[in-house]
Amino acid sequence: MLSQSSSVDSLLAPDLRFRACLAPRTSASSLSLSMDHGTKEKLRTSPLPSSLALTKQSSKHINPVLGCRSSARDTRETSPRKDDGPTHGVSEMIVGVLGGGQLGRMLCQAASKMAIKIMVLDPLENCPASALAYYHMVGSFDDSSMVQEFAKRCGVLTVEIEHVDVATLEMLEQQGVDCQPKASTIRIIQDKYLQKVHFSQHAIPLPEFMQIDDLEGAKRAGDLFGYPLMIKSKRLAYDGRGNAVANSEEELPSAVTALGGFDRGLYVEKWAPFVKELAVIVARGRDDSILCYPVVETIHRENICHIVKAPANVTWDIRNRATDVAYKAVSSLEGAGVFAVELFLTGDGQILLNEVAPRPHNSGHHTIESCYTSQYEQHLRAVAGLPLGDPSMKSPAAIMYNILGEDEGESGFVLAHQLIKRALSIPRATVHWYDKPEMRKQRKMGHVTIVGSSLGEVEEQLKAMLKEECSSYPSAVTPHVGIIMGSDSDLPVMKDAARILNMFDVPYEVKIVSAHRTPEVMFSYASSAWERGIQVIIAGAGGAAHLPGMVAALTPLPVIGVPVRASALDGLDSLLSIVQMPRGVPVATVAINNATNAGLLAVRMLGIKDVDLLARMSQYQEDTKNDVLKKAEKLEKDGWESYLNP
Amino acid sequence: MLSQSSSVDSLLAPDLRFRACLAPRTSASSLSLSMDHGTKEKLRTSPLPSSLALTKQSSKHINPVLGCRSSARDTRETSPRKDDGPTHGVSEMIVGVLGGGQLGRMLCQAASKMAIKIMVLDPLENCPASALAYYHMVGSFDDSSMVQEFAKRCGVLTVEIEHVDVATLEMLEQQGVDCQPKASTIRIIQDKYLQKVHFSQHAIPLPEFMQIDDLEGAKRAGDLFGYPLMIKSKRLAYDGRGNAVANSEEELPSAVTALGGFDRGLYVEKWAPFVKELAVIVARGRDDSILCYPVVETIHRENICHIVKAPANVTWDIRNRATDVAYKAVSSLEGAGVFAVELFLTGDGQILLNEVAPRPHNSGHHTIESCYTSQYEQHLRAVAGLPLGDPSMKSPAAIMYNILGEDEGESGFVLAHQLIKRALSIPRATVHWYDKPEMRKQRKMGHVTIVGSSLGEVEEQLKAMLKEECSSYPSAVTPHVGIIMGSDSDLPVMKDAARILNMFDVPYEVKIVSAHRTPEVMFSYASSAWERGIQVIIAGAGGAAHLPGMVAALTPLPVIGVPVRASALDGLDSLLSIVQMPRGVPVATVAINNATNAGLLAVRMLGIKDVDLLARMSQYQEDTKNDVLKKAEKLEKDGWESYLNP
Repeated sequence: MLSQSSSVDSLLAPDLRFRACLAPRTSASSLSLSMDHGTKEKLRTSPLPSSLALTKQSSKHINPVLGCRSSARDTRETSPRKDDGPTHGVSEMIVGVLGGGQLGRMLCQAASKMAIKIMVLDPLENCPASALAYYHMVGSFDDSSMVQEFAKRCGVLTVEIEHVDVATLEMLEQQGVDCQPKASTIRIIQDKYLQKVHFSQHAIPLPEFMQIDDLEGAKRAGDLFGYPLMIKSKRLAYDGRGNAVANSEEELPSAVTALGGFDRGLYVEKWAPFVKELAVIVARGRDDSILCYPVVETIHRENICHIVKAPANVTWDIRNRATDVAYKAVSSLEGAGVFAVELFLTGDGQILLNEVAPRPHNSGHHTIESCYTSQYEQHLRAVAGLPLGDPSMKSPAAIMYNILGEDEGESGFVLAHQLIKRALSIPRATVHWYDKPEMRKQRKMGHVTIVGSSLGEVEEQLKAMLKEECSSYPSAVTPHVGIIMGSDSDLPVMKDAARILNMFDVPYEVKIVSAHRTPEVMFSYASSAWERGIQVIIAGAGGAAHLPGMVAALTPLPVIGVPVRASALDGLDSLLSIVQMPRGVPVATVAINNATNAGLLAVRMLGIKDVDLLARMSQYQEDTKNDVLKKAEKLEKDGWESYLNP
Repeated sequence: MLSQSSSVDSLLAPDLRFRACLAPRTSASSLSLSMDHGTKEKLRTSPLPSSLALTKQSSKHINPVLGCRSSARDTRETSPRKDDGPTHGVSEMIVGVLGGGQLGRMLCQAASKMAIKIMVLDPLENCPASALAYYHMVGSFDDSSMVQEFAKRCGVLTVEIEHVDVATLEMLEQQGVDCQPKASTIRIIQDKYLQKVHFSQHAIPLPEFMQIDDLEGAKRAGDLFGYPLMIKSKRLAYDGRGNAVANSEEELPSAVTALGGFDRGLYVEKWAPFVKELAVIVARGRDDSILCYPVVETIHRENICHIVKAPANVTWDIRNRATDVAYKAVSSLEGAGVFAVELFLTGDGQILLNEVAPRPHNSGHHTIESCYTSQYEQHLRAVAGLPLGDPSMKSPAAIMYNILGEDEGESGFVLAHQLIKRALSIPRATVHWYDKPEMRKQRKMGHVTIVGSSLGEVEEQLKAMLKEECSSYPSAVTPHVGIIMGSDSDLPVMKDAARILNMFDVPYEVKIVSAHRTPEVMFSYASSAWERGIQVIIAGAGGAAHLPGMVAALTPLPVIGVPVRASALDGLDSLLSIVQMPRGVPVATVAINNATNAGLLAVRMLGIKDVDLLARMSQYQEDTKNDVLKKAEKLEKDGWESYLNP
C-alpha cells in the first residue's frame, strides 16, 4: 500500500507526471531489452528504470480509488496547480476538460502545439479525445464523485459539453477549484428556459417565450404566439433534439408527448421567421478582455449544423449588430473561455438570440485553418490565463462542411470515405476525421474546411467536392479579374490587358457589357462580381464613357477605367468622363488606349494579397529597364543616324 | 502462450487496434467501476470488457518479443497494410516514423487531424513525439533488429532523421516493406560526400569538392580551392556538427583533428561566398507528382537554423532558379515524401546546392500557419499515397524563430519561458513548444511563427518579441497606405484621403516627398515602401505632376495619383501629366482634387485581401445612397424653392 501511495505522489509530482503518462511505452521497452545489446545500452541511459515505470503505470490505474480514500485536501496538494514551480514551457497548468468528443479532440490538437497537458473525463474508452489527451479518466462528466476525483488532478476545469453535473461544479468552486467558464454560466445555459430568462433580463433581443406546465398553458401560448409554435424541453437539448413544432392547436398534445410530456420541463418559443442563421464565437480572457470572431452563416440539415460560411454574406451593418448582440450576451455570463452565440436574422433585419454554448462550437471549426488563432487555441489561452490571440481571418473566405453519417455501420463508413477522397483532391481543403469507432446516421464523423480568396470561390470548390465524380484543380479556378467593355470595337485596345494577365498567369474573363445598350446586364454583372469571386474589374469605354463609373457605383471592388479613343476629341472625352467621377465613386483611370497599364495595375492590386505577383512585377520592371538600357547602349554604339536607318 | 499469441492477433487486427492503444485507460475505468453505480451502468454499455482490455494491454508489451519468435512472414501478415479491409476514414495505413524528435511530433499533430495513425521508433522514452504517437516503440532507429520489428507493424516506413540503419531498410525493401522515401535516397543523403557526387553527376550546381584521405590531399585541396577551406566529415553531420574551417594551410591539421581525423571519412568543399542561404521544401507524391513550396531565406546562428523568412526577399528570377535547382535535385532521388533543399545564393547571383534532407525540415515549420498545406500534412499525404495539397502561402508573409536553449537546465527554461510570454502577446504569433524534458544550450526547444501581410510587418513583430520588455498590439501596427505629396500646399486637398482611411481604420503615414526638390528622398521612399509593409501609395501633386509616375516606376505597389489643381489650367495639366503614363508604368488616377476618391480606392484595393473592408465599403455605398434618397425626398416634399432657400 505504501509503495502504491508513494507511487501516486510520484505520479503527480510535476517532474514525473510526463514520464508517468508514458509508462505503457516504457514497459514495451523493458521487454524489448531482451532483444539485443545495442538497445540495452541505450535503455540503461534512460532516466527512468522500466521496473519503476511499471509501478507508476499500475499506480495510474489505482489512482482514482486511492483518491477516494484520501481526503480531498491532501490529494489537491499533490495535484499540479498553475502556481506551483517555475513554468518551463507555455504553461504547466493541466487543463481538465469534461467531455472527450470531437471538440475535446480538437482542443487536444491545439494544446499539443503549445505542449499544454489536457486531461479528459469521458465515459467512452475510445472517445475522439482519448488518443490525444495527456490522460483520459473513463467516467461520466455527469457523475459527482467522478467529477470530484477528476478536478483534483487539474489546474483548471473546463467543458466541451454543457450537460455536466453543475451542482458538483458549484460545490468544487466553493472548495476553491478553478472552473472556467464559471459553474453559474453552465447552470444558466444547461436549462434553455433559464437561459432565455437570463438573456431577456439583460435586454438581449430574442424570440418571445413562455414556460408551459400543462395543455391549457400550451394552448394559451398558441393563442398568444400563433402557429407554427416551437415547443422545447428545457434540459439536455442539442442538435435539434428536445425541439418539437406544433403547426396547430390539434398538434399540441402529440408534440408534447414527443418531448416526453410536461414533467420533462417544457417551454414554448414564438416562431422566429428567420432568413439566415448566424453565429459568433466570442472569447473572454481571465483579464475580462473580450474578442469576437467574424460573424458566420450556419446552414442546418435536420437541425444539425451542416455548412458554415465565413464570413457571413450579410451587410456590414448586420454583422456589426450581430457582433454587438453576441458581445452583450457573453458579457452577461461569468468566466473565461470561448462562447458560441447562435443568432437568427429575420426578414426585417432583426437580430434575435437563439442560444449560447459555453465552449468551442461547430460554427468555429473553420477557425483552425482560416483565422490567426483557432477557437481551440483561444479557449486554452483563455482558461489558462494566457493573452488572447488575434481572432481575425487570415484568408478572405472559408467554408466548413460537416461529414455526417449517411448510413449506419459499414456502408456509412464507405460513403464517408468516398467523400473524403474527393475532399483530398481539392487543393485548399483540409480534412478532419474524428475517428469515432461507430458510424451512425446524422452523427458528426468529421468535417472539411475549404479556404480561399472569396466565398464564391470556396462555394465552387465545395460544389465540386459534393459532385459524385472527383473534381480537379483547374475546374476549380475562378476568374479573379473581369475585363469588360462597352462594345466589341473596344476589343482591339482591351486585348492588351488580357495579354498582361496571361503573362502573369492571372485567371480572368472577358465580356461585352454596355451601360447604355444593356443596362440590366451591366447592373447584374457589377452587383454579382464580388460574390462570384472577381477581385478587380477593368472596364474600357469610348466617347461618353459611363461604363467604368456605373460599375464602380454598383460594386465595392476596385474598378480600373480605360479611356478608349473614339472618332472625335482624340479620347479626351472618354478620359474626362471616366476620371472626373464625383466624390464616393472612385475609378482608377489609366492613359487613353493604354489597356496594358490597366492589366499591370490589376496585377499590382492583386499583389496586395499575393506576394509572388509583386515579386514578378518587380522582375517585369527590372526587365523593361534592361530593354531601355540596351537601346541606350545601341544608340551610344551606332550613333543616331544608323539607329534611325538600320 | 496461445492466449498471448491470439491476443497479439487481436491487437493487430484493424478493428481492435484502436482499443488496444487505449488499454491503460480501459483499466483505469475497470477500477473506477468500484466507485459508484452510475459509472458501472455506463461502463457496462462500453463495447470492450475491461478484463479483455487488460489482456490486450499486456499483450501490447509482449508484442515485440513475440515478433522476434514468429517468422517475419507470419508477423507481417498480422500487421496492418494499406491494402487490407475497407478504409473507414482518411487512411487506415499506419505510418511508421524512424525518429521521434520535434519533426516526428509535428508529423503526429498533422496526422491527428486526419486520424492517421503514426508509430514512432525512438530510443528516448519521453521524446517529443511520444505523447502524440499512436504507438511509440522505445529503441534505436540505428538498430537493425529494432527497425525490423518496427517495420512489421507499419503500412509504410518513413524517417524524420536520415541517420538511420539504411542497410536494414534496403534489406526490408527486398522483403517488400514499403519505404518512402526509398532506402537508396537515404543512403545517398546520409553520406555528404556521396550526396555531392550524386548531385554533381546530375549536373546540379554545387561548390567544388574533393575527398581527402591524408594531410597531403588536404594541402592539395587547399592549393586548388584556396582558403578559407571548408572541411567536412562525410557522415553523421548535422546542425554544423562535422564541419571545420581552415583559414590557412597551417590550420589544416587542427581542423582535421577537430573532426576526428581522416579515418572518420573527410572531404573538402570550396568556400561558397554566399550572400544569402535559401531553402525550398519539395514534395513528391507516390504518383511522382512534384510540388515546390515558396523559396525561403534561412538565417543561421552558430550553424543552427535560427530564423526563416517566407518568402525569401529575393528577385523573382532568383526564386525561379532556386526552385528549378531544388526541383532537379529532388527529381534525381527516389521515393515519396517531402524533401528540404538547402541552397547558397552567391554575390554574382549563382544558386549552389548546399545539401538535401529527405524529410520535413526546420525551414518548413512556418508552413503550419502560413501555407494551405503544411509540410507535415504534405509528407503524410505523400507517403500514404494521398493526393498532394496546395503548398502555396495563404498569408503573404511569415517569419519563423527557433527557440534555442540559451543556457543549461533551469535557467535555460526560465529564459525560454520569458521569450514565450512575449511571443504570446504578439497577436499573430503561434508558439510551438516541443516539451523536451531536458534543456541544453543551442538545443531546439520550440519555435514561434508570425504571419502577416508583409515581410516588413512580421519582421517588426519579431523585433518587438525579442525586446526585453513585453511588446503590445498597437506598437506592432505598420502603416498599410503611404500618403505622399509634392509640397505642403497639397495637404489641404490630400487630407481627405487620410480622413477616409481614418473612417475605415486603415493604418497610414503622411509624408512630403518632392520628385523635383528631394529626388533622393523620393527614390528611397518609393524603393523601400514594399519591404516596409506599405501596400498602397497615394501620391498627390500639382502642375507638372511627376511624383506619382516616378514613384510608380520605382515600386511594384499600386500607386494612386491625385491631380491637385494648381494656379493655372484648372488642374488639367496635373491630370494629364499623372494619367498619361507610358506603357509599363501605370498610375491609378482619380479626379482633380478628389483625394476622397483616392482614399476610397485604396480601401477597395486593400479589400482584395481584407473581406471586412469590402463589406464596410458596400455599407458606405449603401449609406451614401440613402443620403441622396433623403435629399430627393426632401426636394419632393418641400419643392425646389424652399429647398434652395431654407
